[in-house]
Amino acid sequence: MRFSGLSAFPITPMDADGRVDLPALRRLVARLCAAGVDSIGLLGSTGSYPYLTRDERRRALHAALDEAAARTPILVGVGALRTDEAVRLAQDARAAGAAAGLIAAMSYTPLTDDEVFEHCATVARESGLPLCLYDNPSTTHFRFGPALVGRLSRVPGIVAVKSPGQAPEAVAGHLAELRAAVPPGFSLGTSGDWLATEALIAGAEAWYSVVAGLFPEIAVAIVRAVGAGDAAEARRLDARLEPLWALFREFSSLRVIYACANLLDLTRAAPPRPILPLGEAARARVAEVMRALDLR
Amino acid sequence: MRFSGLSAFPITPMDADGRVDLPALRRLVARLCAAGVDSIGLLGSTGSYPYLTRDERRRALHAALDEAAARTPILVGVGALRTDEAVRLAQDARAAGAAAGLIAAMSYTPLTDDEVFEHCATVARESGLPLCLYDNPSTTHFRFGPALVGRLSRVPGIVAVKSPGQAPEAVAGHLAELRAAVPPGFSLGTSGDWLATEALIAGAEAWYSVVAGLFPEIAVAIVRAVGAGDAAEARRLDARLEPLWALFREFSSLRVIYACANLLDLTRAAPPRPILPLGEAARARVAEVMRALDLR
Repeated sequence: MRFSGLSAFPITPMDADGRVDLPALRRLVARLCAAGVDSIGLLGSTGSYPYLTRDERRRALHAALDEAAARTPILVGVGALRTDEAVRLAQDARAAGAAAGLIAAMSYTPLTDDEVFEHCATVARESGLPLCLYDNPSTTHFRFGPALVGRLSRVPGIVAVKSPGQAPEAVAGHLAELRAAVPPGFSLGTSGDWLATEALIAGAEAWYSVVAGLFPEIAVAIVRAVGAGDAAEARRLDARLEPLWALFREFSSLRVIYACANLLDLTRAAPPRPILPLGEAARARVAEVMRALDLR
Repeated sequence: MRFSGLSAFPITPMDADGRVDLPALRRLVARLCAAGVDSIGLLGSTGSYPYLTRDERRRALHAALDEAAARTPILVGVGALRTDEAVRLAQDARAAGAAAGLIAAMSYTPLTDDEVFEHCATVARESGLPLCLYDNPSTTHFRFGPALVGRLSRVPGIVAVKSPGQAPEAVAGHLAELRAAVPPGFSLGTSGDWLATEALIAGAEAWYSVVAGLFPEIAVAIVRAVGAGDAAEARRLDARLEPLWALFREFSSLRVIYACANLLDLTRAAPPRPILPLGEAARARVAEVMRALDLR
């Protein structure tokens, strides 16, 4: 697969015991395929991968691959606290037919650069699965610096990085720093939905998107506008979504997108405990923004 | 058990597959009992609890309880990312005969105060195990503020807090703030070995200690000196350990204490991957400090 364009990150609907609701997951995947996203980022942070057992992650992946069939490539989170477990997850993903894996620097004991290098390189080597580095410091509290991304980009099979959102005034510099550290063809992607449009305009090749996991059309439109060189249109579409971005910043994109999925009746699933669903007042505000922006 | 005095936190020796080496763990536990520590903090962060399966945590606990017999009470880490898993671990611990559990705010998706409240209260309610709140922001990236500790201290079964190390000039204020928030009898304890002596002198009732997990005598001596009102002697003993504290700060107490255990031939176990053992140069420095301080 190419790591470019729009990668949509759906939630993983599950019951209170952490068992994945496969029909609900299939509905979400079908929505994404129909909207023409470039790839699906299954079991990302939005997909709550660390809260699921290996068996449930395998069940979810098989169902999503079956639903997407040949329409849309699937990359899948293979992160785990232990290196051996991440290797097993990546081997599962490769055996199932995932296009690529997302490898995060999950940690409890804070990790050094050398430790994260060995972790990611071991998973790449022992699985043979193409890997995208998943730099998500808001959840892992580890930051992939340009030097580490550069070292890892030389490891066979490590082909892309998903960076956290950067302030608009910093994003071009961030991309230039990474570009200077990696070989040609290594894909630089972005996340942090409310910062993504400026990152795409500045040259990020892929947007790993939470909003696209539930409302793919609006994210597709932004990516296509940037692709067509129409930055003004992309910015207009992005600015229109500001009320949603404000909710993401206030409550986290995960909690908000669960509320949206519940309000759309796509699933009644709540995030895994200890994460709590939004309270009534917050849900009412989410519903109001969905109405105002015609999100459905 | 009373949450006071010295609680020693040993490593959990394990093989590369995460299987606990029970004879090695028993040797460590026996060392602690013989030195007269007040309790053992099994499967704390130093004991790598998040890197072990439920089965291995149960095996380790049974072996440690058997070795400690009635000599020394054992508190045991019951933290987990999922609330239901933490409940099961606490139920296991109670069934096995642990004196108490340590409940951390393990997180991937960052948690709110309300979420951590529900998490801890659910574990207390559904397990019946006395609980010590395990406030360890350097690993969990969640901080228990005085208001949250106050709310949780009213939950039946939640009886103590293990706070992170505080700067010497801030520790008295920190303890006063917590004391004002909790009912009488709720135990305030400290950690962060190189800051612990001043915390004890300022009135912390317990020291949850990494160094005591391998070198209990020197920590016992500090706690007894403070208990006897001899702050000067406690500070002298603490100051003598500064070369070890410097290594803890530079490499983390976990990596250093593994190196010490290896150098003592108590176990050949390394920390769980992705955490790497210290390299040769660092190990040589550890060995030098052990010689200079006569640590054995």
